[in-house]
Amino acid sequence: MAKIHNIEGIEFGSASSNTRYGNRDDSLVVTINQEAKLSGKFTSNKLKAAPVTEAIQNLSALEKGPKVLLINAGNANAANGQKGINDVKKYCKEIASDLNIEQKNVIPFSTGVIGEALPVDSYLNAFRSALTKLKNDGWKKAASAILTTDTKPKIISKEVKVGKKSYSITGFAKGSGMIRPDFATLLSFVFVDAKLSQNLLNKIHNQALKVSFEAITVDGDTSPNDSSVLVTNGNKEKVVKAGSLDERKLTQAIIETFKELAELLVADAEGATKLIKVKVSKAKNQIQAKSVAFTVAESPLVKTAMYGSDANWGRILSAVGRDKTIDDLNGLQIKLNGLPLVKKGYKDPKYSEKVASKAMKKREISIEVVLGSGKHEFQVMTSDFSEDYILINSDYRS
Amino acid sequence: MAKIHNIEGIEFGSASSNTRYGNRDDSLVVTINQEAKLSGKFTSNKLKAAPVTEAIQNLSALEKGPKVLLINAGNANAANGQKGINDVKKYCKEIASDLNIEQKNVIPFSTGVIGEALPVDSYLNAFRSALTKLKNDGWKKAASAILTTDTKPKIISKEVKVGKKSYSITGFAKGSGMIRPDFATLLSFVFVDAKLSQNLLNKIHNQALKVSFEAITVDGDTSPNDSSVLVTNGNKEKVVKAGSLDERKLTQAIIETFKELAELLVADAEGATKLIKVKVSKAKNQIQAKSVAFTVAESPLVKTAMYGSDANWGRILSAVGRDKTIDDLNGLQIKLNGLPLVKKGYKDPKYSEKVASKAMKKREISIEVVLGSGKHEFQVMTSDFSEDYILINSDYRS
Repeated sequence: MAKIHNIEGIEFGSASSNTRYGNRDDSLVVTINQEAKLSGKFTSNKLKAAPVTEAIQNLSALEKGPKVLLINAGNANAANGQKGINDVKKYCKEIASDLNIEQKNVIPFSTGVIGEALPVDSYLNAFRSALTKLKNDGWKKAASAILTTDTKPKIISKEVKVGKKSYSITGFAKGSGMIRPDFATLLSFVFVDAKLSQNLLNKIHNQALKVSFEAITVDGDTSPNDSSVLVTNGNKEKVVKAGSLDERKLTQAIIETFKELAELLVADAEGATKLIKVKVSKAKNQIQAKSVAFTVAESPLVKTAMYGSDANWGRILSAVGRDKTIDDLNGLQIKLNGLPLVKKGYKDPKYSEKVASKAMKKREISIEVVLGSGKHEFQVMTSDFSEDYILINSDYRS
Repeated sequence: MAKIHNIEGIEFGSASSNTRYGNRDDSLVVTINQEAKLSGKFTSNKLKAAPVTEAIQNLSALEKGPKVLLINAGNANAANGQKGINDVKKYCKEIASDLNIEQKNVIPFSTGVIGEALPVDSYLNAFRSALTKLKNDGWKKAASAILTTDTKPKIISKEVKVGKKSYSITGFAKGSGMIRPDFATLLSFVFVDAKLSQNLLNKIHNQALKVSFEAITVDGDTSPNDSSVLVTNGNKEKVVKAGSLDERKLTQAIIETFKELAELLVADAEGATKLIKVKVSKAKNQIQAKSVAFTVAESPLVKTAMYGSDANWGRILSAVGRDKTIDDLNGLQIKLNGLPLVKKGYKDPKYSEKVASKAMKKREISIEVVLGSGKHEFQVMTSDFSEDYILINSDYRS
């Protein structure tokens, strides 16, 4: 693991609620300095968990002063009706009162089982205990405390130098299915040592999401709890102006951080044995590029073929053919790890079963779909469908 | 098995090509009397197999005289480029010449592996051999000859009485994934002992497809070879006029035949252990009803929960919530085999884990999603995702 850069003004503490995961830390508090700016983006699912509703409200009306993120794993507090809202308000209010800050500055996040009442006092106790252990360099413990059935913590840290200035970026995320209503959700928190305007922060956040968490799929599902937060600490020595070289370089590094976190999620997806990148190019427009990439990436037949290490070009070709945005297959080329599979809608004469079989043995698979109808492109990352995927997801909830 | 009604004018013969399936019959010839009318509907996949292209052309330009259907299993003749077209034209021409009928009256269908050259002489020999064994009552052998990895033949037969007249309907189909590019495709052939206009025939065919083969999904994929044919033999004693009671009753019986064939396909889907009916009602329009039904039916998390006999209402609720046509969940109710799961977007107070667990033990599961925003409804049938599904589909092609 490369060096993890601490971010001035950001501190972490974690503790255990002693509920679903025994005495494992499952409750994380992140304190954020008062000069910081936050950008939050949340699930598109119409079923929004109580903490998501609360976080959206609070972020839209932040007051001056320090901010706090409260993250619990083990219970999603989703589909719990008014009780869920009351519960989340309760622990946010208590923590705000403890810290003597505005309640609106307390932002909650949850991941875990859907539809079970939150053991609110247990988590409140854990948050209080976590507040006694705040540290500026607690990244690994923080990234571990928010996990559900992920098999490892996911942290990415970068430093980008522009002239004499250097900007640090460190983030962590969790999630091993796009949705795991039992142990649900994608959560991501990225912190940047720099001062940016709120507009610029939001813009960069949107840009980064489009090519990272909005470009991965494990099972096509979307959780009621998905949340991504990008925080800048407002360091006055590291002011980034819109249109500057600093902005361009920092944006690029933030985007890379998001993409690498997304890749860590897919690599640790439920039952995954392969990391698959589906890159669609020469599409007539962005909609087509994205649509075809997701159609291929979400095809159970492509995903099971990948698991079987079968360079089954017929399934990939057929998935492209059924995509609603496709007019014809005349200009179509498909490659796998650089090897030609399909040309003009049928088997490429250069295709070699033997060579393709060998290429499929790799853990990382790149499927290139060249549509030949324009100049737009989009890449989706996904995992394969294994027997373990079925076992994990057919396991009874309790 | 109920009585199978023979259809005057329709005869079957089958034989083996001695290719993929050894000496199992894999080649079927259906001869159709000259008074008959045919309606054919084909895959929406832009990748159309050579026999599909040829069948569409021929059906649009049928000549007077008898017609012949040629169906082979084991090779889909898809993605084979110009050679595929040449091959299918070759055996159609030879059979037309043998029978001294118009080549346009020979309609080809294929199911099997994609992208392998058709062993055209082997299948031509088999078709010729099949022609020597024509019988009017050979339904079971016919339904068996077109199978690929289906585990059993699928035949539905009905008789509908209107006044003194009785109309017979008998059909068979194959298909155990919506697409199985290795052993691909849904094929369906239904024959009716009646005389209908071509317009009425097409109308009934469309109506029947909407609620049968267009309302099932195993894996969300669509084959390049999917074909459905509805044939009336033109029996002059059984004339059906548009707008008559006979039309209404016969249409109903044909629709039922299609629905029951579709149900047989889903029940025999790859690795299926459950037959799941997802019924969406009180939708604001037909598009919403269909969209929500397919979103739930194709959710891998719902399908794996069903396999695990887990009444996981959180996953169903979450799938509904992420459907793009959904505005809010305020009026939402979800039931499973009649038991209340969700009310107004969260757990129904009447929900009982114990009762739900018991209900889930059944092989047939009905999921009712009541949206409460209108009066439209749609039902999709699907199967669960089991370890066998993964094993079957991750098996290497050759």
